[in-house]
Amino acid sequence: MATRIGVLGTGMVGQTIAAKLVETGYEVTIGTRDVAKTESNRDRTPMGRPPFSDWHKQHQKVKLETFSGAARSGEIVFLCTNGSATLGVLQQAMPENFTGKTVIDISNPLDFSKGMPPSLLPGLSNTNSLGEEVQKTLPRAYVVKTLNIVNCEVMVNAKKTGGDPTMFVAGNNPKAKDEATGILKQFGWTDIIDLGDISGARGMEMLLPIWLRTWGATKTGYFGFKIVR
Amino acid sequence: MATRIGVLGTGMVGQTIAAKLVETGYEVTIGTRDVAKTESNRDRTPMGRPPFSDWHKQHQKVKLETFSGAARSGEIVFLCTNGSATLGVLQQAMPENFTGKTVIDISNPLDFSKGMPPSLLPGLSNTNSLGEEVQKTLPRAYVVKTLNIVNCEVMVNAKKTGGDPTMFVAGNNPKAKDEATGILKQFGWTDIIDLGDISGARGMEMLLPIWLRTWGATKTGYFGFKIVR
Repeated sequence: MATRIGVLGTGMVGQTIAAKLVETGYEVTIGTRDVAKTESNRDRTPMGRPPFSDWHKQHQKVKLETFSGAARSGEIVFLCTNGSATLGVLQQAMPENFTGKTVIDISNPLDFSKGMPPSLLPGLSNTNSLGEEVQKTLPRAYVVKTLNIVNCEVMVNAKKTGGDPTMFVAGNNPKAKDEATGILKQFGWTDIIDLGDISGARGMEMLLPIWLRTWGATKTGYFGFKIVR
Repeated sequence: MATRIGVLGTGMVGQTIAAKLVETGYEVTIGTRDVAKTESNRDRTPMGRPPFSDWHKQHQKVKLETFSGAARSGEIVFLCTNGSATLGVLQQAMPENFTGKTVIDISNPLDFSKGMPPSLLPGLSNTNSLGEEVQKTLPRAYVVKTLNIVNCEVMVNAKKTGGDPTMFVAGNNPKAKDEATGILKQFGWTDIIDLGDISGARGMEMLLPIWLRTWGATKTGYFGFKIVR
């Protein structure tokens, strides 16, 4: 069983995933573009959240490294960057650092350039997906799309919804999906549906528009999708 | 309360909706392109289903009319055609026949031209939707998008899923959404979320790819989406 996990992205999603993985017993290295800058930054984020350095003081077991250092150190790598940055980050992290590894892609191809609510990035929906592009960028890794369909607090605690929602996995490699599923169970997911190959990421990413509308209608981000059957 | 409903489309979805509406007590007129041809056709459908005439013998209370006759006769009109045909059918049915009426759009912009599984029709996803195009085509009608996210047997009997799934409505007119919601309740839906204006149809139509994949994974079409919250 893997013991070392790399997490790319130091935002809210990366922090939440990294903290839960440490709590679960993994050794976690979180990756960023510029370590010195991320460490020294004392400003709140554009969303008004405290700087990474504040969080890091409370989570000293998480090592901070460059994207490539974090990718290299992990036996499994989580992609927790903004979707519009994901493919560029993979280049910085160097594709060879992912060889033979399970890569859990939880990023969403959201396009905020035209205001709120975001749509999906051109060329990355319907007949393509970010998950497929990640797999093309990392041809020697085993990419699994999962978790992108819920708020990050729900990602690591399915029961926060108050029920037992469904989680999906999609990817080309059954063993990588088993590995991802093992972690999903540690995060409290018990109803997991395997949608098949990585092109199943299309449907998962195309859930975002209804997620955003449901969030607006129900005034809570703590919900999940259950396949009632 | 409306008593007369027009149903456009004589396929499996139109038949299922029409039969349930008659059973519920409505007067139903079903619309087709060519009444004589639809009545006299004795061939099975391309999907292997019996011809409309067989079904009609069992459902004689349903009147068969042209698209425009059915649209004119209904106080409410259901759109049950293939999504690729919907906008053309509205022209045949004549937009003035929909003036002041609630139009319940349950069609999906599926593109079967590139094989299975279908994707969504170009230009009708992400930053647009079929629901929005229907509203533009019928500017004096009150379009409500709903029911398109489940199998037609589940549409008219939510409990067929074995649980209590969520149904969504989206549309610009609150009264029309109330009217649609009244019918949804008659169909067994108890958990109904209002996604706001008709652009909410984007998210509902973009559920189709994950519907198709889930159908493949679970081997049943009798499922629904529940917002667990």
